[in-house]
Amino acid sequence: MARDDGGGGNSSYGRKAFKRSKAHFADRITADGRDGWPVEAGRYRLVVSRACPWASRALVSRRLLGLEDALSLAVADPVQDDRSWRFTLDPDGRDPVLGIRYLSEAYDRRETDYPGGVSVPAVVDVPSGRLVTNDYQQITLDLATEWTALHREGAPDLYPRARRDEIDAVAADVFEDVNNGVYRAGFATGQEEYEAACAGVFRRLELLARRLEGQRYLVGDTITEADIRLFTTLVRFDAVYHGHFKCNRWKLTENRVLWAYARDLYQTPGFGDTVDFDHIKRHYYQVHTGINPSGIVPLGPDPSGWLTPHHREELGGRPFGDGTPPGPVPAGEEIPARGRP
Amino acid sequence: MARDDGGGGNSSYGRKAFKRSKAHFADRITADGRDGWPVEAGRYRLVVSRACPWASRALVSRRLLGLEDALSLAVADPVQDDRSWRFTLDPDGRDPVLGIRYLSEAYDRRETDYPGGVSVPAVVDVPSGRLVTNDYQQITLDLATEWTALHREGAPDLYPRARRDEIDAVAADVFEDVNNGVYRAGFATGQEEYEAACAGVFRRLELLARRLEGQRYLVGDTITEADIRLFTTLVRFDAVYHGHFKCNRWKLTENRVLWAYARDLYQTPGFGDTVDFDHIKRHYYQVHTGINPSGIVPLGPDPSGWLTPHHREELGGRPFGDGTPPGPVPAGEEIPARGRP
Repeated sequence: MARDDGGGGNSSYGRKAFKRSKAHFADRITADGRDGWPVEAGRYRLVVSRACPWASRALVSRRLLGLEDALSLAVADPVQDDRSWRFTLDPDGRDPVLGIRYLSEAYDRRETDYPGGVSVPAVVDVPSGRLVTNDYQQITLDLATEWTALHREGAPDLYPRARRDEIDAVAADVFEDVNNGVYRAGFATGQEEYEAACAGVFRRLELLARRLEGQRYLVGDTITEADIRLFTTLVRFDAVYHGHFKCNRWKLTENRVLWAYARDLYQTPGFGDTVDFDHIKRHYYQVHTGINPSGIVPLGPDPSGWLTPHHREELGGRPFGDGTPPGPVPAGEEIPARGRP
Repeated sequence: MARDDGGGGNSSYGRKAFKRSKAHFADRITADGRDGWPVEAGRYRLVVSRACPWASRALVSRRLLGLEDALSLAVADPVQDDRSWRFTLDPDGRDPVLGIRYLSEAYDRRETDYPGGVSVPAVVDVPSGRLVTNDYQQITLDLATEWTALHREGAPDLYPRARRDEIDAVAADVFEDVNNGVYRAGFATGQEEYEAACAGVFRRLELLARRLEGQRYLVGDTITEADIRLFTTLVRFDAVYHGHFKCNRWKLTENRVLWAYARDLYQTPGFGDTVDFDHIKRHYYQVHTGINPSGIVPLGPDPSGWLTPHHREELGGRPFGDGTPPGPVPAGEEIPARGRP
């Protein structure tokens, strides 16, 4: 996400309604390398913020598919400065692989004087230090379908060919009303604009709850890209969207179906083990001074409920299809205690 | 409450911790008239905002004691302007009894060039148009103990002599940690100050929940001043303190005991029929632009739960002691539909 918009891709808010732009750098890393960027173990670096829902999609996919060794990870400080995402969590404030202090440096090497925002997720070519893509809508699809040669044994099919139309349709609704809807509510500058967005968020969530009442996952009986995209918003809902973005008709914990669904995923290896509630809360509350001038980060909500039984296994479903769950989180990528429930 | 602090009495916030001042005008209206203001039917006018928790104490007491005919009521617009509380809800923007447009005019008639803030609750002497008192801590105690000659038949004893020490002790803790604690959290300018206040709010609420687990009311087995003072904060908790003031460890609806206790009171004649959620939300979210620059008022939370069964009658208790519940709300004082659950 870019500075001050908290969202993947570039976006702007001001006197007009909040608008999220398409990613500017949309090269694809593919098996056949047709854009000049072939899939290759160790060549690329995924740059994320654990605060960002769009980047977090890639964090989950990378874990589920077992791409941790093939695609290394740089985690930016959740609080940007005026030069945007920075590697202040690393020794000397530099990413140890790319050697840069700001993600913008990789953008600059790709295109000088690019006037747009700097956003995560970003994939950087390590040898040249150049940004390859910040296309948050495409990155995970390519991890699922183009990086297959590097998938772990037992990796699930997150974008099964026979289900793509259905996944795309669900994901489009989720994007419009939920993933991006919470931002339109939170960054609204007028009452009417806010109310339309907020009502849309809850209308869609209620439809999704109805869909998920009797089936464990959004599409088919396994985890797919559609679940990943809904999860990254739901896991932030009570922590930041409920209060900070005023999406407060109810808390996620008050919706029986969605709360159980979200906990089920959270407790599935590859989902919750990528989530840092500390990064999430500090980013939203400290960066968006336009809606939280004090920069104070709330003490609540109590996140301990994320670890309680969800009973969704009673609905059946095969989380990983014919595959298996991912192994443990790689050393160095564990979430610190303050970011966990 | 004064403009921008949302609280009874004068208060200030800025670089230092939020501080609530004592009321400046502390004359008392008594049975013997020793301060020059004898209790007298029809002589005084109670000025409130239904948004304000301090003023709302007096609204509840007046209803429970049946003082509606003896002490008339002026309801200010929930949104102040730079001259503070105003009668823009009335025809021509003037209080029909006092004939003034701003509450400050009654202050001016009492003391010219008073440099402090204008706050509610305020009691105004109708014949002279002069403010008598804005002492939010004393007004309800005097309604309960000095206005007895004008109480309705069956009025409860809200401040029973034998229980006063206990009521005062409970009320002091509730004031410090809860009534005023939410303001200290909400108006904190630093993280540490906020955290201390917010933690104090929930520490006290948890102690109160323990106390109320096995007894229906805070002191003795009847409704007292102590319950009124806790209620006026609890009824605002999810609507404004949870999000706007960042008191978000949990919602009131998530605390089984306090939520049932608050609903019990809300559903008791004299409590819920004084509450206007529309006034409450608009006041806090539109007036405190320092913490909500957009002035947008959230759609949530869903207030319908206030009317659900609470089962607190199983704990026994005699809400009105040897008395009876108050009659219906006087014509003209009903809460409009948009302010009700």
